[in-house]
Amino acid sequence: MRKTFIPALIAGLALAGFAAPALAQNTHIGAPTSAISSAVLVPAGSETLYVSGITPPVLNEGAPAGTPMEFGDTKTQVAGILKRIDGILKAQGYSFGDVVMMRVFLVGDPAKGGKMDFAGMMESYKEAFGTATQPNKPARITMQITGLVMPGMLAEIEVQAARAKK
Amino acid sequence: MRKTFIPALIAGLALAGFAAPALAQNTHIGAPTSAISSAVLVPAGSETLYVSGITPPVLNEGAPAGTPMEFGDTKTQVAGILKRIDGILKAQGYSFGDVVMMRVFLVGDPAKGGKMDFAGMMESYKEAFGTATQPNKPARITMQITGLVMPGMLAEIEVQAARAKK
Amino acid sequence: MRKTFIPALIAGLALAGFAAPALAQNTHIGAPTSAISSAVLVPAGSETLYVSGITPPVLNEGAPAGTPMEFGDTKTQVAGILKRIDGILKAQGYSFGDVVMMRVFLVGDPAKGGKMDFAGMMESYKEAFGTATQPNKPARITMQITGLVMPGMLAEIEVQAARAKK
Repeated sequence: MRKTFIPALIAGLALAGFAAPALAQNTHIGAPTSAISSAVLVPAGSETLYVSGITPPVLNEGAPAGTPMEFGDTKTQVAGILKRIDGILKAQGYSFGDVVMMRVFLVGDPAKGGKMDFAGMMESYKEAFGTATQPNKPARITMQITGLVMPGMLAEIEVQAARAKK
Repeated sequence: MRKTFIPALIAGLALAGFAAPALAQNTHIGAPTSAISSAVLVPAGSETLYVSGITPPVLNEGAPAGTPMEFGDTKTQVAGILKRIDGILKAQGYSFGDVVMMRVFLVGDPAKGGKMDFAGMMESYKEAFGTATQPNKPARITMQITGLVMPGMLAEIEVQAARAKK
Repeated sequence: MRKTFIPALIAGLALAGFAAPALAQNTHIGAPTSAISSAVLVPAGSETLYVSGITPPVLNEGAPAGTPMEFGDTKTQVAGILKRIDGILKAQGYSFGDVVMMRVFLVGDPAKGGKMDFAGMMESYKEAFGTATQPNKPARITMQITGLVMPGMLAEIEVQAARAKK
């Protein structure tokens, strides 16, 4: 009986809704023309990677500490942050395509009259999300805050990534 | 044998703890008198909907761009945001009752001495959460930030919703 | 047949990958020397506890309302917040070790020239996370914002905790 049991069991599991998980993908919801998703649906049975807020790398070691020269402009800082996030994701076998939520915190840029450089952030963002090779776009929120851990930092980004368990 | 196999399998699954999921509900924790939950517990086996930060709709097309007149006061903006979020939720078969986490970001209102209009936000919030017909209340955080993507915007809200997989 | 069915079923479930869940733990990723994790991986099959933003308790009932004297300095406020969060976690059978994401929002401290007291926050944080008895460290983001719900509040913290379903 044992020989026939397991195939019958698997058939029975399928009928009962316990088939091997189909590895459902995240669903990206929103207008194709938008740079972000209005929402992302993460299916049950997914694991979640919570990434810390990531700050920009030092661009110019010789620059006076705590100045925008040390870290570059917003576009440059966001590019550096995204590269760091990419490294953290890849070390866990994840990629930008698995990012489901992104929170972008920008500090007012003195070179932009003290307002956040939203356009500069977008330039670097669009090179990583919604491209021909990486079409997925996360849900996202962006806002201007008062300050980050180090003067001169104009951007910090945190993400959550999720995917069906392998 | 096949005929008796499947009922026996289902009985066996139940005994082994693999019964069809009971569709466990989110658990809302906190004082009944509070407008928010102190915490919400989302059971294993749930799917998660990450919604982007949602900004208010334009209220007065003819108003000068970038002014509060364009988007209305905080209460009005929050009402418009919640209506938009409701639409995003409903399109996925979700509703306000499935919202487990809400983050409310308010900009200082010139008409309130530059402080966030917390009371105005609450007026609109209370029409959607913790009501007789929709008693569920999310975990929530509210704070005043420096600015949003467009001048005149006084509020932006992001939510996560979750529910047991159907 | 029924007598032999259930053990065979359980063996079959194990072979088919449906064994009782192994209660996979959260994985904390990052440098051992860092006070936070760069990321935390929450396995599939976990439940998630979303905790509201928690504000500090009143320290001095007699102090003028809306002053830092009412709530204490940043270190004191963060200690009070963490104690409150600990209580919320424990009421659900969770502990600090289950916290996977933490967001720290600080208001500029007049006693620190209007800048957030990051060092003060860290003093209290380090007593709860990454210790000999509680080595787990969450992913975290910290920033300075404009204001919280009550004047005099210098800190608000929200966390998510997660663990494999028991």
